[in-house]
Amino acid sequence: MLNPVTDAFETALRAILPEHSVRAAEPRYLEEPRGRYEVREGLLALPETTQEVSQIVRLANEMRVGIVPYGGGTGLVGGQVAPDGPAPLILSLERMNAIRSVHPEENVLIAEAGTILADVQAAAQNVARLFPLSLAAEGTARIGGNLATNAGGVNVLRYGNARDLCLGLEAVLPDGTIWNGLSRLRKDNTGYDLRNLLVGSEGSLGIITAASLKLSPRPAGEGTAFMVVDSPKAAISLLAEARSQLGDGISAFEIIHKQGLDFLEEYIPSVRLPFEEKPEWCVLIEVGLARGLDPQEALETLFETGLEKELVSDGLIAQSVGQRTEFWSVREHIPEANRLVGSISSHDISVPISLVPEFIARAGRVVEQLGPLRINCFGHLGDGNLHYNVFPDAGKSRQDYLAERDEVKRVVHDLVHELGGSVSAEHGIGRLKTGDLEKYGDPAKLAAMRAIKTALDPNGIMNPGAVLAL
Amino acid sequence: MLNPVTDAFETALRAILPEHSVRAAEPRYLEEPRGRYEVREGLLALPETTQEVSQIVRLANEMRVGIVPYGGGTGLVGGQVAPDGPAPLILSLERMNAIRSVHPEENVLIAEAGTILADVQAAAQNVARLFPLSLAAEGTARIGGNLATNAGGVNVLRYGNARDLCLGLEAVLPDGTIWNGLSRLRKDNTGYDLRNLLVGSEGSLGIITAASLKLSPRPAGEGTAFMVVDSPKAAISLLAEARSQLGDGISAFEIIHKQGLDFLEEYIPSVRLPFEEKPEWCVLIEVGLARGLDPQEALETLFETGLEKELVSDGLIAQSVGQRTEFWSVREHIPEANRLVGSISSHDISVPISLVPEFIARAGRVVEQLGPLRINCFGHLGDGNLHYNVFPDAGKSRQDYLAERDEVKRVVHDLVHELGGSVSAEHGIGRLKTGDLEKYGDPAKLAAMRAIKTALDPNGIMNPGAVLAL
Repeated sequence: MLNPVTDAFETALRAILPEHSVRAAEPRYLEEPRGRYEVREGLLALPETTQEVSQIVRLANEMRVGIVPYGGGTGLVGGQVAPDGPAPLILSLERMNAIRSVHPEENVLIAEAGTILADVQAAAQNVARLFPLSLAAEGTARIGGNLATNAGGVNVLRYGNARDLCLGLEAVLPDGTIWNGLSRLRKDNTGYDLRNLLVGSEGSLGIITAASLKLSPRPAGEGTAFMVVDSPKAAISLLAEARSQLGDGISAFEIIHKQGLDFLEEYIPSVRLPFEEKPEWCVLIEVGLARGLDPQEALETLFETGLEKELVSDGLIAQSVGQRTEFWSVREHIPEANRLVGSISSHDISVPISLVPEFIARAGRVVEQLGPLRINCFGHLGDGNLHYNVFPDAGKSRQDYLAERDEVKRVVHDLVHELGGSVSAEHGIGRLKTGDLEKYGDPAKLAAMRAIKTALDPNGIMNPGAVLAL
Repeated sequence: MLNPVTDAFETALRAILPEHSVRAAEPRYLEEPRGRYEVREGLLALPETTQEVSQIVRLANEMRVGIVPYGGGTGLVGGQVAPDGPAPLILSLERMNAIRSVHPEENVLIAEAGTILADVQAAAQNVARLFPLSLAAEGTARIGGNLATNAGGVNVLRYGNARDLCLGLEAVLPDGTIWNGLSRLRKDNTGYDLRNLLVGSEGSLGIITAASLKLSPRPAGEGTAFMVVDSPKAAISLLAEARSQLGDGISAFEIIHKQGLDFLEEYIPSVRLPFEEKPEWCVLIEVGLARGLDPQEALETLFETGLEKELVSDGLIAQSVGQRTEFWSVREHIPEANRLVGSISSHDISVPISLVPEFIARAGRVVEQLGPLRINCFGHLGDGNLHYNVFPDAGKSRQDYLAERDEVKRVVHDLVHELGGSVSAEHGIGRLKTGDLEKYGDPAKLAAMRAIKTALDPNGIMNPGAVLAL
């Protein structure tokens, strides 16, 4: 059983850290972006070195005090705030934010866990390389948190999740020992894959303190287009056509429903919408091509093929960098519009790509049965990952639907599960979805997870209550 | 403690399997390709279903009998033969060789563990897709073994290791439970990464029974070239240039030393060598490009840049599919020539790519100090993965160097370790390198590995002695 942070613990902690590294946590550490989890107070440690992290963890393990590792605090499933159980220590990595080394000739960069994602991207850009992880919170999120949650974003289709961009880790394990695993190697088959076990474990198996990250060559030319598609099925056929024409050159393939454009128009009118008449479905396509290929020409060819095959009915190809930014701005403001409307229930789901049309059709029907509701379905179609958010009917508020909320979630997740999908495609489990994991997770996998958790963290100090419920 | 296979165990096993599924193992199951590990006899189980595998494992776990999972038997580190400890059951997956389903629109294929790698490749080709895992033993190796060992091969540079080509697994865990994890999802953040824990665990944490595999679009055009480079450093600069010109279009970038060509000339004269005068170093480059790009033109441009920058001095671009095959035949026959010569010590190592030239220079010097020896250094330069093999001087045999053998291995591996490299880049640990893992492995990682092994396989029945020594 865990103990709460006590005066005795704080005294012991202050004995191993400089004075400025321990303090009462400010409110921003005590709640998460959606306001679903919050605590009233907490003790905050701000270590500056891996050695200090190790000492803190060792102390916490000895005194049986929980630790919540804290990155940028942008997670959407409550992994960063622990309201239940004995009060834990909040351990922020924000002062460990050095880019330790850059190896352009190896396409490798080594960053400390507290480095802000946008700073990692900039460091890569400085040596004419690309760090392709890209997501809305990139100006605040920190790379340690991105790895701990296996973050996704818009470029997964081409470059993979955070997991796929990591070559090695330095981490403090639950007994305080330091794993020096900052490999710059592309190939290393010496033992179990501890790296991928920590990536995506949401701080429940150890604290990532630094990472060796994979960079990519920057595409020689990039292009962006909006295309109006007749249906989600047509969008998937268009994606297949795009892949057959451009191979790996498709960097992003996002689907947007009219509901998202309606919300933008009403709540963020400063965002310029791409088409005069809002289409039922459209896709935002980004290509990044090698030297010798013209992105605009490639998008034109794709559009023409789409027309011929009756997959698309209208399209816009960005003619400038400014216009590309404008196109992306539409996509990137949808989550903000959603927040302004206030969803009843939001779902970050994935299904096998070929089943996306079936999911969208059937989910619409089962949600409709629960009452007059609006659905904003958008997201990373190329990955089969949809953000499927359900909103009150016009003129009503989320407060009017408190009774329906759990039922909306249940019918959507049941359908996802039936189709072999995931109820957390990119956000993780945190504290929000531990029940879903119990309900939909494979029993053998869950048993293995519990065995691993107990083996590596026998006292249960690492992010207690995250991933696996208390 | 484990028990050996006994008559009682065999009787119990026969009670749960059809008669034709249990027999005394033929010699081919009892030794590995290099002849370093062999046993005299063994009991062989040939399950046909995942359910049967589960029953076998459950029985073995109850009776504390070890199991050696057996794929194609092509591993090079003795993971498939267990000469030490109580006699285990050999469990071959060869009868589970169905392609369960193919999903071209999702770029996914689901194959049982016993499917031969070449058959997986062919099934992908049948739907105009590519399964890019490619290695010398592909006609014999089975996909379950490829995944269990995280196999590498010639296309890792572009497509990654076996690990990177796997979306999900079905596996039997050491207590006999079946994990149904055959996901076709590109994104799924629901809990710990059990898939990657099993991939590369060499059968020591469970038995993979089927896998969901990632396919790729086939490049529209492919091309192959040999280029003579002035040095390994020049080869790396040429790779950087190739990446800057062709982005992800480089599928393979292999380095070959003159020693390999000498061996081919002497031992396999039927292989046609590419240059009249054997160069000290040359590289074999494969490109696969999108529609609109001409592979030959791209290779010519690369060659011209290489000439201008004084990186290359000669080159040959394949003019036909036949010639491409001929070029690859040179590379692919080098391991066979090596076997015919008989190495004193072979090393499958990797170092950070920028340190390859330093490794080659320094390794040459330390090996030279041990006596008159020949070094054949070749391999996957693009991954920093070299096969660094040390041979007797001309006219001598490996028997003349029994005294030097361990010392050769030690000096090479010490240097690799000093440079932050891996002493097993793609072959795994098996039984051959458990000592190396102990010696060079990170202590915190090793402790975590032991804790995980004990947690998931408390009786130690899964491939006893592999990865972690008995």
